[in-house]
Amino acid sequence: MAEKQLDDLFLDTLKDIYYAEKLILKALPKMAKAAVLPDLKAGFEQHAAETEAQIERLEQVFELLGKAPRGKTCDAILGIIEEGKEIMEEYKGTQALDAGLVSAAQAVEHYEIARYGTLATWAKQLGHKEALNLFLATLDEEKATDEKLSSLAEASVNLKAA
Amino acid sequence: MAEKQLDDLFLDTLKDIYYAEKLILKALPKMAKAAVLPDLKAGFEQHAAETEAQIERLEQVFELLGKAPRGKTCDAILGIIEEGKEIMEEYKGTQALDAGLVSAAQAVEHYEIARYGTLATWAKQLGHKEALNLFLATLDEEKATDEKLSSLAEASVNLKAA
Repeated sequence: MAEKQLDDLFLDTLKDIYYAEKLILKALPKMAKAAVLPDLKAGFEQHAAETEAQIERLEQVFELLGKAPRGKTCDAILGIIEEGKEIMEEYKGTQALDAGLVSAAQAVEHYEIARYGTLATWAKQLGHKEALNLFLATLDEEKATDEKLSSLAEASVNLKAA
Repeated sequence: MAEKQLDDLFLDTLKDIYYAEKLILKALPKMAKAAVLPDLKAGFEQHAAETEAQIERLEQVFELLGKAPRGKTCDAILGIIEEGKEIMEEYKGTQALDAGLVSAAQAVEHYEIARYGTLATWAKQLGHKEALNLFLATLDEEKATDEKLSSLAEASVNLKAA
């Protein structure tokens, strides 16, 4: 077997985030349903729509590489989502629930920011220009979502304090 | 049982990151040992020393709250570290190993950035001013480490290309 190279790592990481995004797409409607603050609920719904488009971008990258889109179990996102579920169960019906949901969502966003940042660096190095642009478009959305969540964090904890 | 509040969520999250930091402290020497690029090796060693100080800051926060320092299983960091281990095993001895190590480390850093950001927001809301300053000091270090890793990412993938 030939030595593994950066393009193998690139493909492995692409499969990792593809698996992760599909799981996130399933989790977001549950988070929207659980959220109390209307802006937070709407934010999760909007990000679910955005996530669908991000999955399509990943499928475009697979196509550019001449590969069928395939996920690879991502233990990181499984753990992050599991923690979010625990918060939803333990804080259900309490005034701290929204703050917990924001916290869980920001852990998800930061995982995505790390992965898309890495993929963008590698795409540049490997000369995958179209893929690079697709990753950068998603990276901008993830960063904007994280900033929006930071603002909502203040709103959600202030709600609690009111 | 009284309704769970933001201060419960604050303590739960403090226990979560305390558990995570202790696991990270164990993982860093293994990553330093595996790294090929001398700057990356040195970076992991330096961050291990920084992590020890970050754990002490968390212990100070527990003390400020009048609680004994106690971790709580953090599925997120378990998953993130597991993925790092897989990369170390699958890419051992290859030219892509360093790039994979940087990627794994940035996933860890972003998890910490998310958690310390959340803890800082809640500390501010709950009036824990000393805790807030401790979290902000660590948050600055984590962001600096992430930026340093981004620079090393280019160096490590360039090394591969050379």
